[in-house]
Amino acid sequence: MTKRDLAFFDISELGRLFRARKLSPVELTQHLLARIEKLNLELNAYLTVTSELSLAQAKKAEAELCSPRASKSVHDRGPLHGIPISLKDNIYTAGIRTTAGAKFLKDFVPEKDARLVTQLKAAGAIILGKTNLHEFAYGVTTNNPHYGPTRNPWDTARIPGGSSGGGATAVAAGLCVAAIGTDTGGSIRIPASLCGIVGFKPTLHSVSVDGVIPLSVTLDCAGPLARSVEDTALVLNAFHARDKSSASKASSKRKFALGIPKEFFFDVLSQEVSTSFEAALKVLRKSGCKIKEISIPLLDHTESAGNNIAWPEATRYHQKMGWFPKNSADYSEDVRARLEIGTRITATAYLEAIEQREAFIQQFHSALAEAKIDALVVPTTPIAAPLIGEESTTLHGKDHATRALLLRLNRPANLAGIPAISIPCGLAPSGLPIGLQLIGPTSSESALFSIAQLFERARPFPTLPK
Amino acid sequence: MTKRDLAFFDISELGRLFRARKLSPVELTQHLLARIEKLNLELNAYLTVTSELSLAQAKKAEAELCSPRASKSVHDRGPLHGIPISLKDNIYTAGIRTTAGAKFLKDFVPEKDARLVTQLKAAGAIILGKTNLHEFAYGVTTNNPHYGPTRNPWDTARIPGGSSGGGATAVAAGLCVAAIGTDTGGSIRIPASLCGIVGFKPTLHSVSVDGVIPLSVTLDCAGPLARSVEDTALVLNAFHARDKSSASKASSKRKFALGIPKEFFFDVLSQEVSTSFEAALKVLRKSGCKIKEISIPLLDHTESAGNNIAWPEATRYHQKMGWFPKNSADYSEDVRARLEIGTRITATAYLEAIEQREAFIQQFHSALAEAKIDALVVPTTPIAAPLIGEESTTLHGKDHATRALLLRLNRPANLAGIPAISIPCGLAPSGLPIGLQLIGPTSSESALFSIAQLFERARPFPTLPK
Repeated sequence: MTKRDLAFFDISELGRLFRARKLSPVELTQHLLARIEKLNLELNAYLTVTSELSLAQAKKAEAELCSPRASKSVHDRGPLHGIPISLKDNIYTAGIRTTAGAKFLKDFVPEKDARLVTQLKAAGAIILGKTNLHEFAYGVTTNNPHYGPTRNPWDTARIPGGSSGGGATAVAAGLCVAAIGTDTGGSIRIPASLCGIVGFKPTLHSVSVDGVIPLSVTLDCAGPLARSVEDTALVLNAFHARDKSSASKASSKRKFALGIPKEFFFDVLSQEVSTSFEAALKVLRKSGCKIKEISIPLLDHTESAGNNIAWPEATRYHQKMGWFPKNSADYSEDVRARLEIGTRITATAYLEAIEQREAFIQQFHSALAEAKIDALVVPTTPIAAPLIGEESTTLHGKDHATRALLLRLNRPANLAGIPAISIPCGLAPSGLPIGLQLIGPTSSESALFSIAQLFERARPFPTLPK
Repeated sequence: MTKRDLAFFDISELGRLFRARKLSPVELTQHLLARIEKLNLELNAYLTVTSELSLAQAKKAEAELCSPRASKSVHDRGPLHGIPISLKDNIYTAGIRTTAGAKFLKDFVPEKDARLVTQLKAAGAIILGKTNLHEFAYGVTTNNPHYGPTRNPWDTARIPGGSSGGGATAVAAGLCVAAIGTDTGGSIRIPASLCGIVGFKPTLHSVSVDGVIPLSVTLDCAGPLARSVEDTALVLNAFHARDKSSASKASSKRKFALGIPKEFFFDVLSQEVSTSFEAALKVLRKSGCKIKEISIPLLDHTESAGNNIAWPEATRYHQKMGWFPKNSADYSEDVRARLEIGTRITATAYLEAIEQREAFIQQFHSALAEAKIDALVVPTTPIAAPLIGEESTTLHGKDHATRALLLRLNRPANLAGIPAISIPCGLAPSGLPIGLQLIGPTSSESALFSIAQLFERARPFPTLPK
């Protein structure tokens, strides 16, 4: 048996080792910092590595958790205590620069932590640094012209997806145990899918985005990326510390019914994603899940409604901050183009999109309730990781904008404010990971984790061939 | 002493007479229907008079309140029992046509009552009919081209103001005891001011607008118009039947502090309104109110923010109903022009207006709290009632759009969702009534009624010279 690298241990394994004093958070942090030192130059997952601060946090965790003087429980902050994680660089960190991937914020240092950072620190987590992202989280490639592209650890010629691409790469490559990303149109799930890890977009407003640089105030969510379903749930749980009926607890239910929507999700898929999805359905059926078709006709409006909400909200925020159009020349070309589109949406189109959102929320929930379905099961992205710079993708002889393809299957959950998880569902013949998505009703976090865990047990996730 | 006309009795007087069996709701209703028969042809306050239904309701009220067989309390529904009122014709009434003053809704009969109608019926009120309005409540003159203008009973060559002009005229002319109107930018207070009566715009969402044809979903309010402060409070109370800490109860406080804003309110005023306002301040001081200056700089943004919210929301509703642009030719010229303006507001301008609204709400409340001020005291309209068709008004040598003048001082309360009352504060040398406005913080209804009543006692409201 080859010795497993510490960098890929589970949170619960690490916790046991800490508490048995067989491993110190300081050793783990040093190990991860050494890996970052070695691998980040190529992968470009981190924009800022907070080595000193993280070692100081690790020492504190060591003292609290592993010191022989410490009493058994007083200083034990729970599962995340001593666990090194990364934060997407659009999340405010007091005293640590927060660039949002933007050129003109390269020296911006917030005075306060985002609320979710305060919560993670209270849970004892160690912050390793700030990860690269698509500029202002406004894109899906993490091909950042100001700080360089983040590379997919499965194939460094390829994108990790975005906008939380730095965090996904860091998790997949063992440069942190877990990452915090944000998801307005798929920005956690897309890179999770393309990097072969787990990504969770929680129910709207269930994780605070206070202190997260907004993209769309109506749609923005923050959430975890990790290498296992349990790790993902444990990180999410840190944001609900006081909520005993918490999201991350496995559902007590044993038999789940999953819905495959007739509309929208299967209109445009690569052959390898289709094949992988069909295989995943077999695994789920074998694990005892009932799978049936369901109709949610308003799914077809989710793309335009999502755009007509996100575009003007993004532009308005940049106007309000005095960045746009003043700094126009300093934005990446694609982000500037989208900010310009946002100026041209009419208020009536925006209001119509808000109405379509309400109607979709209703239809989604009543369709699932009527059919007694716990969650939809669908692919996360219609394709595996594209090459860096690949702006168009040919599927079944037809060209598609790569950006639109990657967003497509993620937007419905953002529009409805409902939780969704992406889990690895296998490798394509090309050797690239493919993601499976579960989308549930509002606050169905625990059911999603349970179903995802059923799948994970039946078909262990592939790991990076290194 | 001349015999007073029953049509001008107070609600509490009428209630005493009913309960002493000296007057029946049937007699009162017949009397008012006879007055409508005689006066409505000229005044055009009512679009629909529901004579049969109101007599049936009156008979029921008589049986419940005045029948010798009735037990003392079981059937007594409270102060509004047996009181005949009118409803603005944008309020849904089951089985009674509801035109909203629109040509293409002249035969529209809703299946359900608006929630506020259900509440009034539960309180025992008698519905006399539906009153004329500016088409779709989208204007301030009630010069309705489809159903004819409503005329101001103080001078029938003049407008009653709008959009609740039919209700205000009906109250002032003794064609009902009280009226229900709606107020999105002043539509209750403007006609109250121009017709010499009381009008109350309550705190946003405190009176249900469910079943009221919307103008701006963010700003719409419904509320009462009546001839005394007490009557107005009694009608408002019917919408809060279960709330014991109700709006309409007089505040126990004896000494009030009133604020005169430095900004906005006094920039454009006719001489007669200025003079009347100064006299009103003297009365208030004599009644024990402390009056001081206050600064609320964001008042200057309320006009543009109000427009950028109301315009697109109105247009979107008409689009959603399939009315606009389909029925373009059937709208009044001015309403069509505003619906077209609504298509040209950008989403970012709308979102900016929503931000300005939030900022104004905060500034208003903190300014009043810091200065320990109970309410602002300001004029309701900068001018007395203009002539029908008078589209521009000259003040101090400068021309102003009459519409903008009438709206101007009313918008701040709509934008902030705060309560405001207009009370008569005297007659101009021209013999036309002038209104005084009190604007308080969220849910300050009881303080506003108390201050208004102090003023009313010190300076009894002028009545129609007839």
